[in-house]
Amino acid sequence: MNIRMICHTLGNILRVEAALMMLPTLVGIIYGDDVTAFYATIGILLVVGSAMSFRAPKNKNIYAKEGLLTVALCWVLMSAFGALPFFLSGAIPSYMDAFFETVSGFTTTGSTILVDIEALPMGMLFWRSFTHWIGGMGVLVFVLAIIPMAEGRNMHLMRAEVPGPTVGKLVPKMKSTAKILYGLYLGLTIIEVGFLMAGGMPFIEALLAAFSTAGTGGFCIKNASIAYYNSAYIDAVITVFMILFGINFNLYYLILIKRFKQAFKSEELRWYLGIILTATVLITLNIMHQYSGFMEAGRYASFQVGSIITTTGFITADYGQWPMFSQCILLLLMVFGACAGSTGGGIKTARLIILVKSMARGIKQMTHPRTVSVVTLDGKTVDDETMRGVNYFFTTYIALFALGVLLVSLDGMAFGDTFGSVLTCINNVGPGMGSVGAVGNFAHLSVLSKGVLTFMMLVGRLEIFPMLMLVLPSMWRKQ
Amino acid sequence: MNIRMICHTLGNILRVEAALMMLPTLVGIIYGDDVTAFYATIGILLVVGSAMSFRAPKNKNIYAKEGLLTVALCWVLMSAFGALPFFLSGAIPSYMDAFFETVSGFTTTGSTILVDIEALPMGMLFWRSFTHWIGGMGVLVFVLAIIPMAEGRNMHLMRAEVPGPTVGKLVPKMKSTAKILYGLYLGLTIIEVGFLMAGGMPFIEALLAAFSTAGTGGFCIKNASIAYYNSAYIDAVITVFMILFGINFNLYYLILIKRFKQAFKSEELRWYLGIILTATVLITLNIMHQYSGFMEAGRYASFQVGSIITTTGFITADYGQWPMFSQCILLLLMVFGACAGSTGGGIKTARLIILVKSMARGIKQMTHPRTVSVVTLDGKTVDDETMRGVNYFFTTYIALFALGVLLVSLDGMAFGDTFGSVLTCINNVGPGMGSVGAVGNFAHLSVLSKGVLTFMMLVGRLEIFPMLMLVLPSMWRKQ
Repeated sequence: MNIRMICHTLGNILRVEAALMMLPTLVGIIYGDDVTAFYATIGILLVVGSAMSFRAPKNKNIYAKEGLLTVALCWVLMSAFGALPFFLSGAIPSYMDAFFETVSGFTTTGSTILVDIEALPMGMLFWRSFTHWIGGMGVLVFVLAIIPMAEGRNMHLMRAEVPGPTVGKLVPKMKSTAKILYGLYLGLTIIEVGFLMAGGMPFIEALLAAFSTAGTGGFCIKNASIAYYNSAYIDAVITVFMILFGINFNLYYLILIKRFKQAFKSEELRWYLGIILTATVLITLNIMHQYSGFMEAGRYASFQVGSIITTTGFITADYGQWPMFSQCILLLLMVFGACAGSTGGGIKTARLIILVKSMARGIKQMTHPRTVSVVTLDGKTVDDETMRGVNYFFTTYIALFALGVLLVSLDGMAFGDTFGSVLTCINNVGPGMGSVGAVGNFAHLSVLSKGVLTFMMLVGRLEIFPMLMLVLPSMWRKQ
Repeated sequence: MNIRMICHTLGNILRVEAALMMLPTLVGIIYGDDVTAFYATIGILLVVGSAMSFRAPKNKNIYAKEGLLTVALCWVLMSAFGALPFFLSGAIPSYMDAFFETVSGFTTTGSTILVDIEALPMGMLFWRSFTHWIGGMGVLVFVLAIIPMAEGRNMHLMRAEVPGPTVGKLVPKMKSTAKILYGLYLGLTIIEVGFLMAGGMPFIEALLAAFSTAGTGGFCIKNASIAYYNSAYIDAVITVFMILFGINFNLYYLILIKRFKQAFKSEELRWYLGIILTATVLITLNIMHQYSGFMEAGRYASFQVGSIITTTGFITADYGQWPMFSQCILLLLMVFGACAGSTGGGIKTARLIILVKSMARGIKQMTHPRTVSVVTLDGKTVDDETMRGVNYFFTTYIALFALGVLLVSLDGMAFGDTFGSVLTCINNVGPGMGSVGAVGNFAHLSVLSKGVLTFMMLVGRLEIFPMLMLVLPSMWRKQ
């Protein structure tokens, strides 16, 4: 275990966080907030970060194990320090709550413990939404894009942070891939800001809403979430952009280099859009009697479907008032999640496809034991290692989910609330059901539950294994 | 597809059902009931059964596909005809309800649509509990034991009906294996009757309670289930026997032939007993404040744990009043289920072990990509085919479960009730949560939900694939 190298990398990341925090500090100064808490945090980050990364280690090799551990520690440390402005300023008096909120931000979950969001100063609100934007594309991907690093070991970090069953480099150099990804991400965010401002949203609100959309996070600076704006235009813009940010970024790169045909024949894209369409139609028909007609029902259904499947978690309607059938569809979408290689959470459409196809293969082999059949994705055979990986992932996902429900059930909430709280956190969605649902929040949960849910958010964002590395002592042993 | 052979086998099975139905008819006569409905059903079964099995087909070969289909059709037909006495006598006025109740019986689920069980005549109550006993060990296993059949094709039938990830013959001849299993089953049932009568239970009540325990079914002739007897002795006897009937019958055979060491070192047995002990202790501590002390809480905890993990579904306490933590443990036990090769349902302890161990292997391979590790059970390597089979099973199980929840949610029950109803049916337990919980029943559900849950019960008992064969038209196509 190359502890020196892990320490060095983490130190660098804390210094990057200090730099990133200057942005909300600036916003705070402009809005006349007291920014002492930001100054203090930046100071702490610089001291700790510099101490950790002071001396570059001679041995810069890291292996899969160190890669996983670095990623897990990176996210935990970023959140632990990122929570300080909320805590030190008194905006969130309990450190556990501030930590929950920050993990929820970086993991782009969007579950909140705040009862009155609008009471926070603008600098804090900016930092809160900015964590979504940083976490969406990945902190390490960002670091890869800006910090000079040896090429060899980056793949281990990127693999652990970019979601999906497999990870592909767009271009031979990892560093260039990271830059392209962040370029696309920034570009799309700016376009969304433009569209939102065209609908009459003030710049700062449009920016923060775009941060949340881009990261598929869901934090909003209004207590009523996007319902506050009550505008069909803004709903439409955000619906479209949520869905866009749920698409594999590799496809945007393909479009950028004009390989349109290859981009649009993506099997994952077609499944993803097909599921969105089906869910929207089913829910529209199911909730129509609660609205003025098909159009209005369709507007709310499509927004909520887009918000939930991309695991953003913005709200324009209290789906807790919808029939149980619609609520169950939304719960299912939480699990499905967005495309691999997007900023969305859930098990990812690519894994869903592999699971469905492997089920079909299983049934086929029961009835025709002697036939050999393979699972294909985009016309290519999915290799055995990826198949096994998807199965391990799914089983471990279900097991951790069950464990989470068991622990949160100690709070004594209704079953739907308990189930929904863990489901929404492990899939990085945001709102759950009942008291933690569309119009609820996580303030009333016990410290144990908040801790468990924080862990679930990290498990979901980092796709399980880095966090397991961190908590299983047996993993720390030498080989 | 050898349709003639399938038809012939099913005809034989219906004639066996006619023979089995003579027992409740006799009980009805003794108790002075009107047994016309039984006579009529026996007549119908003999006519239809004889017509179907009239001419033995020349080609007696059946393959995996036909085996699965025969088993699925066998269980559907047995239930369709088995429902007739309830329906024709007017004891259950709706045929759908009668079918639900009969499937619940044969699949040893024990979910009931009856609001007042005690209002039924004794002959009907006998038939209701007897279906549990017949379904517990398996109808086809029974047929194999008594009807002369060619040796070769029996394995396909037995494999489809006996639960668990793999099926082993105890002795080289299938027929002898079936006879040994039924012998053990009958022996244990008789011993339980003796113990219950020693506790003051009248013979007929002891017999019917033993039928339900042996099949791990859960139908009781009292509205209050086993709580009616309010006896610590009877609770203890039934707890022990439920747990005994949840153990792999192969182990009893090993004990019978005095290979004690091999029987007791079974990994599955140790996990099964370990889970029961852990769950009982956790629930006892969690519910202690609701009872007079540790002993009373332990009595109710152990009974309910034994009842739920073996998927029997007898009740001595309204666990709906217990803290949510205890309820969630029970929900988890529903999924775990009993040992493979027992009469219990759920995913089976053996599959649980394989899933847990394959998760551990997956984590190991993430951190040490170059290490090759295998999963072992009882010291033997689990082959790749079995591993894949367990994964297919688990994924399909989760997928069908989710589909079931979606369909039942159309009834608009609370989420816990919806979730619990599908969970209890697919795992063949009996009671769910809330309105379909310990003191509830399934009478108020829509016809659609009853249909879906009936399908789930069959899916659970036959371990998914035979029922999928039946409903997927693509499976009927020629190879």
